[in-house]
Amino acid sequence: MEKIDQEESISNILKKVTVRKMFKGEWTNRTISVVQEIPLTIFLNDKEIVTLLCMGSHLEALTVGFLKFEGLIDKREDIRDITLDEKKGLIFVKVDKDPVMEKNLLFKRVITSGCGKGTIFYHAIDALLTRKIKSSLFITADQIFFLMSNINQKSSLYKKSRGVHNTALATPEEILLFRTDIGRHNAVDMIYGKCFLDGFSLEDKILLTTGRITSEVLLKAGKMRVPFLISRNVATQQALTLAQDIGITVIGDVRGKKFIVYTNPERVKK
Amino acid sequence: MEKIDQEESISNILKKVTVRKMFKGEWTNRTISVVQEIPLTIFLNDKEIVTLLCMGSHLEALTVGFLKFEGLIDKREDIRDITLDEKKGLIFVKVDKDPVMEKNLLFKRVITSGCGKGTIFYHAIDALLTRKIKSSLFITADQIFFLMSNINQKSSLYKKSRGVHNTALATPEEILLFRTDIGRHNAVDMIYGKCFLDGFSLEDKILLTTGRITSEVLLKAGKMRVPFLISRNVATQQALTLAQDIGITVIGDVRGKKFIVYTNPERVKK
Repeated sequence: MEKIDQEESISNILKKVTVRKMFKGEWTNRTISVVQEIPLTIFLNDKEIVTLLCMGSHLEALTVGFLKFEGLIDKREDIRDITLDEKKGLIFVKVDKDPVMEKNLLFKRVITSGCGKGTIFYHAIDALLTRKIKSSLFITADQIFFLMSNINQKSSLYKKSRGVHNTALATPEEILLFRTDIGRHNAVDMIYGKCFLDGFSLEDKILLTTGRITSEVLLKAGKMRVPFLISRNVATQQALTLAQDIGITVIGDVRGKKFIVYTNPERVKK
Repeated sequence: MEKIDQEESISNILKKVTVRKMFKGEWTNRTISVVQEIPLTIFLNDKEIVTLLCMGSHLEALTVGFLKFEGLIDKREDIRDITLDEKKGLIFVKVDKDPVMEKNLLFKRVITSGCGKGTIFYHAIDALLTRKIKSSLFITADQIFFLMSNINQKSSLYKKSRGVHNTALATPEEILLFRTDIGRHNAVDMIYGKCFLDGFSLEDKILLTTGRITSEVLLKAGKMRVPFLISRNVATQQALTLAQDIGITVIGDVRGKKFIVYTNPERVKK
């Protein structure tokens, strides 16, 4: 599997702006870099589905990951064509079968607390609970520290501009795929989309994120069937309840020489 | 206007969980506090609109702010009744006129990059640009530092649990209203809802946030008609373009003795 470093595309994503800076009582004019934020409108079989605000990279994987998470595409073989019009910010996905749009889908949408995209909350949970994750994968404390320091190192875009979220897919030994976006859900979608398109198995993988562990990112991990969700940030109570039920090991607050194992600690060895 | 300190409700919002903690090679069992995350389903004239995931406080203001931002309620006098069933997480709003739901609203929704709720992006911008904000309110550097240190001080829930966002409404002299939630949009909605319900003018106020300044929070500031948006975090390029067009002074990266004035700097005095 591809090991990605996004360095090459950073120059396209950062834009220069001129600002007034105050520092210790002195004003100066400065040119600084800010992250771009572009709208991407997704069409599925010519039906306009949604407009995502994103940073502009990995748009096909982002689109496929979003549609798959939302249950709007099923199998990879169903995808007949993906056409991106980058200039206009439009992407057209053709699938063999017209997806069944739930009646009044809007009125069932959940607006999430965190950095959230809507998901059909309760439906999603119901479906997940029928297939508990029972992986025997385990990880050691040293591996957790190694992976987290690795994702932090890769976050050079964050260092330059702040205001982006980083997500990675890993084995206990190494990071396989690293994605950055202004929305941490976008970064997760890109990873899911890439793995879905490449037919890459997730059941023995780890999802790493720099963001908070809310119920929504937990549900995404559940849909991906990854047994581990690891963050340098903390978790909400609802996410932990779901993690127990779905069978995901949640590890958070990974900073310096400490971390917390919130759920299913039997998968973490000393 | 009410000056709020949310201290009293923190004990309800934090939940104890037992976790395994790793610190410098040693495992311990610990009981720690995590933030609760509850679903609140909003009904408008008996139509199910949305389920918000939130922390569970200020639910009426949150609901009204959300509906007002989404353009689903217009005037305060239109609200006939608000009934909250806190146990079931349901809230029922009755308005005199049935709101005009845009046809296929779902398919026009924008999923935002940041901690985002969907908004009807382009429509919103069009409407905002027709009425540029032309406030003569100004702020000094000392006032910016004072307000930011004040919002940081009030963020005691953040200190206890991390993973919450804080938003405040202020004059240049003081913070008037302070709200905390797991979603920073929820906190903005609570403030907008409270001001809308109380008939409180926003055209001479400042919106302060601890979150990033993305185009969506900028659009919310635009709908509120506040001339200032101030954050300790940074801004995206799209937010700055919109801020120029709408006429909002965006101040970010307020940390220690520095800050950046991104747009409309004429409102900031030394």
